[in-house]
Amino acid sequence: MKTVAIIVFDKFTDIDVFLPWDLFNRVKLKEQKWQVKLLGTEATHTSITGVDLKMHGHIGEASKADIVFFSSGPGTRQLYQNPRYLNRFHLDPERQVICSMCSGALILAGLGLLDGKSATTYPTAFDTLEAMGVTVERNSHLVTHGNIATAAGCLAAIDLVAWCLEKTVGNEVKESVIASVQAIGQGQVCIY
Amino acid sequence: MKTVAIIVFDKFTDIDVFLPWDLFNRVKLKEQKWQVKLLGTEATHTSITGVDLKMHGHIGEASKADIVFFSSGPGTRQLYQNPRYLNRFHLDPERQVICSMCSGALILAGLGLLDGKSATTYPTAFDTLEAMGVTVERNSHLVTHGNIATAAGCLAAIDLVAWCLEKTVGNEVKESVIASVQAIGQGQVCIY
Repeated sequence: MKTVAIIVFDKFTDIDVFLPWDLFNRVKLKEQKWQVKLLGTEATHTSITGVDLKMHGHIGEASKADIVFFSSGPGTRQLYQNPRYLNRFHLDPERQVICSMCSGALILAGLGLLDGKSATTYPTAFDTLEAMGVTVERNSHLVTHGNIATAAGCLAAIDLVAWCLEKTVGNEVKESVIASVQAIGQGQVCIY
Repeated sequence: MKTVAIIVFDKFTDIDVFLPWDLFNRVKLKEQKWQVKLLGTEATHTSITGVDLKMHGHIGEASKADIVFFSSGPGTRQLYQNPRYLNRFHLDPERQVICSMCSGALILAGLGLLDGKSATTYPTAFDTLEAMGVTVERNSHLVTHGNIATAAGCLAAIDLVAWCLEKTVGNEVKESVIASVQAIGQGQVCIY
């Protein structure tokens, strides 16, 4: 069984959780041994627009996941310098694919996962990420180094999820999942 | 106050609700008199992936909305021929912008809103929609007739929301909202 852990917190940006959530769940149509979990610190987290979202488990479980996907939103600003929050993660880029959307990169940096690497993030977080010693690629929507990737701008989630799937389930499943959400006449292929 | 009603039901496709939901909410950053409501027949509806989503009101309220946006997913198949469901809507394309994502077009057809019109829908619903007397444009991701539009393929929601905003709040707000979700380096412009 392969597991995707999507890391959620209060004041998350809706698209940055729900777009990857839907895309990752589509893998189940192609791979039976696949699960996607929303992990947080509370039983429910609330988005910036007020949507209450039930979690499937605690962030501590992320250490066992094959893919750890940090979502984003204003909530990251309360977390990336919080040692009590950061200490609950025991991630390992040698055996896990680890990535972030938008300002989720601040948490990756807080965890030391971007040390000596370049990254992208949401424009309002460029300076903060740079002050943490990370080289910010200000015109890139996706920056990858081995098993670590950062993406920015909500729709970059599509390329970020594609990158995760290429690494874990291969090109064919990746292509099917991404084609399944394209607009009709623009590469759309039904998978259910 | 302008109101957007997003119509939700059980077994909705996550992206087809949450992508428009997030986009429409961004309008609030530009227009104070703007609200977005999730309307259903129950207090909570559950997506095909198992996400429970609280509603803000009953589908009967859609008659008062400025934009009525039918989401989609397998759940539409239980509704488009159900007179008890359809009779709760009292929509008027003379004063309302009315549209659908993917198989939501079946409900528009069930309501008689596509009589004499062409439309697009999810490929698995092409034949059903055609059997209801609608001319299906099988290679179009967005088909508009006056105040009525149908779109298909999840990411077509972006162009569908853009069309709704052009009709109700004008080009400048539309451009800002759509730019705010683009990938970095691909037209992304922050609005918050």
